[in-house]
Amino acid sequence: MNLARIAPLLTLISGLASCQSTASAPAAAPEAPRPPAFTAEAWRGDVEALVRASLSQGRSHALLSDLCRTAPKRLSGSEGATRAVEWGERTMRELGLSNVRLEPVMVPRWERGELESLRRIDAAGLPTERFPLLALGGSIATMPGGVTADVVVVRSFEELRQRESEVRGKIVLFNRPMDPAQHDCFAAYGGAVDQRSRGASEAARVGARAALVRSMTMALDDHPHTGAMRYDADVLPIPTAAISTRAADLLAAEVARGERVTLNLQLSCRTLPDVLSHNVVGEIPGSDPSGELLVVGGHLDAWDVGHGAHDDGAGCVHSLEAARLILSSKLPMRRTLRVVLFMNEENGARGAESYYRTHADELERHVLALESDAGGFTPRGFATDANPTTFESLRAVVELLETASANALRVGGGGVDIGPLARAGVPLVGFRPDDERYFDHHHCERDTIDAVHPRELALGSGAIAGLLYVVANLPEPLPRNPKQAR
Amino acid sequence: MNLARIAPLLTLISGLASCQSTASAPAAAPEAPRPPAFTAEAWRGDVEALVRASLSQGRSHALLSDLCRTAPKRLSGSEGATRAVEWGERTMRELGLSNVRLEPVMVPRWERGELESLRRIDAAGLPTERFPLLALGGSIATMPGGVTADVVVVRSFEELRQRESEVRGKIVLFNRPMDPAQHDCFAAYGGAVDQRSRGASEAARVGARAALVRSMTMALDDHPHTGAMRYDADVLPIPTAAISTRAADLLAAEVARGERVTLNLQLSCRTLPDVLSHNVVGEIPGSDPSGELLVVGGHLDAWDVGHGAHDDGAGCVHSLEAARLILSSKLPMRRTLRVVLFMNEENGARGAESYYRTHADELERHVLALESDAGGFTPRGFATDANPTTFESLRAVVELLETASANALRVGGGGVDIGPLARAGVPLVGFRPDDERYFDHHHCERDTIDAVHPRELALGSGAIAGLLYVVANLPEPLPRNPKQAR
Repeated sequence: MNLARIAPLLTLISGLASCQSTASAPAAAPEAPRPPAFTAEAWRGDVEALVRASLSQGRSHALLSDLCRTAPKRLSGSEGATRAVEWGERTMRELGLSNVRLEPVMVPRWERGELESLRRIDAAGLPTERFPLLALGGSIATMPGGVTADVVVVRSFEELRQRESEVRGKIVLFNRPMDPAQHDCFAAYGGAVDQRSRGASEAARVGARAALVRSMTMALDDHPHTGAMRYDADVLPIPTAAISTRAADLLAAEVARGERVTLNLQLSCRTLPDVLSHNVVGEIPGSDPSGELLVVGGHLDAWDVGHGAHDDGAGCVHSLEAARLILSSKLPMRRTLRVVLFMNEENGARGAESYYRTHADELERHVLALESDAGGFTPRGFATDANPTTFESLRAVVELLETASANALRVGGGGVDIGPLARAGVPLVGFRPDDERYFDHHHCERDTIDAVHPRELALGSGAIAGLLYVVANLPEPLPRNPKQAR
Repeated sequence: MNLARIAPLLTLISGLASCQSTASAPAAAPEAPRPPAFTAEAWRGDVEALVRASLSQGRSHALLSDLCRTAPKRLSGSEGATRAVEWGERTMRELGLSNVRLEPVMVPRWERGELESLRRIDAAGLPTERFPLLALGGSIATMPGGVTADVVVVRSFEELRQRESEVRGKIVLFNRPMDPAQHDCFAAYGGAVDQRSRGASEAARVGARAALVRSMTMALDDHPHTGAMRYDADVLPIPTAAISTRAADLLAAEVARGERVTLNLQLSCRTLPDVLSHNVVGEIPGSDPSGELLVVGGHLDAWDVGHGAHDDGAGCVHSLEAARLILSSKLPMRRTLRVVLFMNEENGARGAESYYRTHADELERHVLALESDAGGFTPRGFATDANPTTFESLRAVVELLETASANALRVGGGGVDIGPLARAGVPLVGFRPDDERYFDHHHCERDTIDAVHPRELALGSGAIAGLLYVVANLPEPLPRNPKQAR
């Protein structure tokens, strides 16, 4: 999950995070559409059967293990991403989906390269201690020999600008932690990630030679966490990388004591020309001739560290397994369920835009889009941007998901990959699992298959299957949201 | 948590498990006491401050690490248990509790001994493959040389009795798994644990020479899980032990294929005379002269494998840290909060009975008892046996705990250690965290400090602090339950 691009939204949402299922729906829109007449309770038996099947005969963890073994590194444009696309297509066919196809997407191609090094330079000018390091996605390389400079530690862009004279020619370390007092870890992330996404541009603007950032995690350990960054058009790019929280604490403490800390940073990452990749699409055709459909998806690309197991192998598997559970249940489907494994969420969201453009002529028939991109932990429920009428209908459906621990509905975003569909008025839903462990694994070497618990993952698949099954079979489609201007 | 003794209750509760906070309270009791007049909402700010303090300045994980380092093995009657008692007393004083004291409890003393061995015997009578093994707590030893016999696999006591003629002289393997389709892992445990607690007696009754049991976990791995068992008075005891789920699957598959499986079991465990141990008690004195008090606790003893980190170091730390959070918040406390670290929950519950007897003359002043003995995972909420009026009041309090993810209240038990207080009409509350991972660690070598997530543990402490703080300060005590006949 590339949260940088929804950070402002997250900050907004954090104030609404208490809007659980017991809270009231968002304020009424000007026009109140007629709610579809249905009794959610009638579906409880089917929904609980889907959850039980996921727990006892499910394939969630086996599918995720297979993806992580087949394509553990699958950053957009890489060979791993190509293998992941092949895996997605093959798996959809094996699971019995229809209309399986690849939809072309041109994606950026950034490579980490061989050389990543951050070393302390001692008073004699010699390199000593090494610090674990990950270049941020999109960073330029250093010149041969790297950048050697003293470190200035700041906690905000405001402080950076106030200390402009000290910063010139230096290496800036952005060291504002995710707020541990914030119970909502995504909101805490949203409150810190500007340092990663915009830090290099801000530091370049005041004359810094490189930007380091404290990793986006509350865990105190030695793992750096990568993620996307962008250079503003008006600055000369400087190299930028993440260091571990422990290294950040150490260096900041030294500087705070008045010690001079000199570092040498060397990066060999590079951006190559865009390459052809694909979204992977498959369907369970609905029985209704209206052509109405629901989208469920996650993103197939992942950072080039760990296995991308939680981010977002879990979401891909949730989507695939939800479809498989519905198929193998033999339950009827009135509307079509379309599974989309999106490409390039992490550093471009080109798959999201491509899906929106490719399917422009049928967006009116999209009744709902659901994304899972918050990890494979025990479900809590869902978030949605739906209008108040649809919110209430979804709440009635979500309350059926108690046995999957997924019975909370709150106001919130759907996900980066389905985001563009909001322009067409499609109600968006995001799966929301427990988030306490997520950022321990996010974008780092710890995002591996062994960090995903089979039952926790399966509960998510079952919950998503249950929600999709009910909404696909409602007598009338849920009222749409107002269209948005682009 | 020794769930065997509440298994029948768990089975009963499983049908009620959907009674989350959105569901209705239990059926009305004959006399409906007047509910105390209060507005829970008035406490929201204080409660959320306690949760934030727990997350950002809390000591939960540090305290648990200290306990696990000081006394990782602390089965009743052991040297480790003595160290744990000393740790509890010392820690209470360090945290600033008042009236800190040890209350004597005579406890059973069972020792595993050096020799635990389960080996396959080949056609030539020679020992070959070894299987990981843990004697069940309370088991007798084998005779020198052990028991060598063929294995009969059964899934129920009914099947055992039907196959009595096959079983005589054999080693019985009880191999009914915890039901994976059951979303409530405690209910699934309740549906399988009779094999561990009563299997040896049932097997002895039909002439078996030893009883093995499939470990009580849904994880498929190589870790045996121990736990308590009891011999019925009318049988000659036979030795009994747990094997891993993988070993159970392997042996059962061989037997199902018609292969003859011969095993040699050797155990050197023994039961020694009862010894003196202690409950550890400390308080935050309330300002009200009524002497009314609330009890919060977990159990200090643990099985002699792993660290007892989740079971129940977490509950001890939840209780201690909840008190520390309240103390350091400087919030007023109308009623006394009493922290009790109970001894001997796992194999005797003597601490529970001892507390009940020792405090017989003040049970009328106990307004609530809360136990945490379900692990240190992310909170879900609480369960209670409270009467409908008190249930509704507690629900209003629990709904304040959204930021600790603990806002669900359901009907259920409080815990083994506080169980006797129900006789005196004290409403009991059990802390209920997420349970998907609990039985991966329960009673086995995997129950270690590194399996406890700092933030998940801290959320539990914050939630418990919040609930206790509000109930301690209600204008009137919550209506009590009817007294129970002994």
